[in-house]
Amino acid sequence: MPQFMDVHHGMEGITADQLNQAHQADLDIEKDEGVHFEKAWADPASGTVYCLSEAPSAEAVQRIHERAGHKADEIHPVPLTV
Amino acid sequence: MPQFMDVHHGMEGITADQLNQAHQADLDIEKDEGVHFEKAWADPASGTVYCLSEAPSAEAVQRIHERAGHKADEIHPVPLTV
Repeated sequence: MPQFMDVHHGMEGITADQLNQAHQADLDIEKDEGVHFEKAWADPASGTVYCLSEAPSAEAVQRIHERAGHKADEIHPVPLTV
Repeated sequence: MPQFMDVHHGMEGITADQLNQAHQADLDIEKDEGVHFEKAWADPASGTVYCLSEAPSAEAVQRIHERAGHKADEIHPVPLTV
């Protein structure tokens, strides 16, 4: 299944609890779109959050993020990894 | 050790071989700065590459990337992960 890296801006000051809650909100509904959110990393200083997922499409990733209340600003397919 | 996510733009058309070679160039010298590059993901269509590392500082990450020939455009500490 294709992998995607999506990016959220404007998350300045995000806490560990908030990141955990946001990720859990994705996990709770991800199966509806055949998505799996594998990992997320947050930089509270710049307000940037990166999410790595496996999904059938970028649109499927976005639908889950939107329903969970945090639409992504960018979603990139990442077919190459090392 | 702190983790960092760095981002390279302008890498349109990057191939799997080029990504592997760039990553290996980092690995070959990373110990000089106490850095470890854990993983990289590339989107050849938008020309974006994400690198995840453990390092003593963002400056240490950049010094390795510069010496390896591919300066990062952004380097974010990512103290929160899930």
